[in-house]
Amino acid sequence: MTRATARRRVVRLRGAEHGSRPDTLAAEEPLEIRIGGEPLTVTMRTPGQDFDLVAGFLVGEGLLHRTDQLAALRYCAGTDEAGANTYNVVDATLRGAPALPLSAHRTLLTTSACGLCGRDTVDAVRTHVRWPVAADPLTVDPAVLYALPERLRAAQRTFDSTGGLHAAGLFTAAGELLCAREDVGRHNAVDKVIGWALREGRLPLTGHLLLVSGRASFELTQKAALAGLPLLAAVSAPSSLAADLAEELGLTLVGFLRGEQANVYTRPERIVG
Amino acid sequence: MTRATARRRVVRLRGAEHGSRPDTLAAEEPLEIRIGGEPLTVTMRTPGQDFDLVAGFLVGEGLLHRTDQLAALRYCAGTDEAGANTYNVVDATLRGAPALPLSAHRTLLTTSACGLCGRDTVDAVRTHVRWPVAADPLTVDPAVLYALPERLRAAQRTFDSTGGLHAAGLFTAAGELLCAREDVGRHNAVDKVIGWALREGRLPLTGHLLLVSGRASFELTQKAALAGLPLLAAVSAPSSLAADLAEELGLTLVGFLRGEQANVYTRPERIVG
Repeated sequence: MTRATARRRVVRLRGAEHGSRPDTLAAEEPLEIRIGGEPLTVTMRTPGQDFDLVAGFLVGEGLLHRTDQLAALRYCAGTDEAGANTYNVVDATLRGAPALPLSAHRTLLTTSACGLCGRDTVDAVRTHVRWPVAADPLTVDPAVLYALPERLRAAQRTFDSTGGLHAAGLFTAAGELLCAREDVGRHNAVDKVIGWALREGRLPLTGHLLLVSGRASFELTQKAALAGLPLLAAVSAPSSLAADLAEELGLTLVGFLRGEQANVYTRPERIVG
Repeated sequence: MTRATARRRVVRLRGAEHGSRPDTLAAEEPLEIRIGGEPLTVTMRTPGQDFDLVAGFLVGEGLLHRTDQLAALRYCAGTDEAGANTYNVVDATLRGAPALPLSAHRTLLTTSACGLCGRDTVDAVRTHVRWPVAADPLTVDPAVLYALPERLRAAQRTFDSTGGLHAAGLFTAAGELLCAREDVGRHNAVDKVIGWALREGRLPLTGHLLLVSGRASFELTQKAALAGLPLLAAVSAPSSLAADLAEELGLTLVGFLRGEQANVYTRPERIVG
């Protein structure tokens, strides 16, 4: 058993019958992210690839965009009642202090004038995107697109045992899977993939594709754009603000990617048969 | 068209064919929640039932548990570039200041000692639950349980047009649907239901059932417990920490509720055939 799953006895109901059996659940634990010892946020996540998660989260918040800005990542030395390290607190040391106080970097909170609106949040993200995503010359064959969900699904090892995890996968333009990550939180799965890419020195992710197993929200589109990705595909529906942000940034947003079908919400000219 | 949806032209791919058509997307907009004029948080949500969302969020954070503690809710008078109210900032006036500074109320952040762990977060929620959930004498027939998803699904009007919304439904022990809400965020759908209940003077929700359309996370279990609900059912998987919290609080947690099947993770004695 890894920390990514937990075992528990469950009562299984089937019609009027019931019986008890062991079951495997997706693990969920809090992770506190600190910068230079200062608490930044707590996220509920599935343990595993925590350093990638932290690195990717910081990219998505606009605090980090180059590998050399990340001087160190370490688990804080805290312990639980039994004296064991909980491995639930990660401290990041950044090279060079961020130009603004951290609180001002929280994308949503920068825009919280009394008239907060979707337009403000789109603009706030746009000012943080450092890569020319709109100019990315990526083209993708529809057949490549159609093949992605099955490839991601095949890499979801924990989902097989728990049925309870979101997934994100990074692909080349030819459809080769480079990195797949799972988590109880879909934003965490994306952070883990993008953090992996940062730590591998692969940012910006020019010419690459990101697939998520669920819906495409504003937040996931923001994370894709801040990593320099020109295409975000989702198995399920996008939101209105995800499409607005993708249009503003020139990112191709694909939704309902199932079987040999998909909807392309923005920049469809990148899908070339 | 309501603010809950937005229209957009999409390119629809079907195999090697493609065509353009109008599509309906679930709307997503930021909502800033303030207390007494002070910003507390920003959540991305589907506009609609915003006052319920704010009230329910405050219940789930342990800041509110009686209807009379909520003195007023109003939209802040901010405007967008065109001079229109954005209806994206809600200010809540509470009767009597919270006993602790607000930041200390943020459940996860209270526990951010260096050794943060799942146990800490479970304990932090337990200390905020004001209702004797464990002693709730609720019993539910499996046949009632099996009927819930179809009843919630029938009430999901926006899902029908967008395919992009989570849902939460509050039911009586006999399976009567009292309140159904949809949102791009599953936590928001639950907040809208619980906020409705608070504003209707129905808290604690003793003897009631809450169904969510997706997975059962720690956060959703926390929200259910803080509203006094003895049973949380999910169409998909629960996480390990959701089951740990439900066990600690004596809440019945049901997962994978589909057709005439379900798994009962905690307090199965409430399901009586």
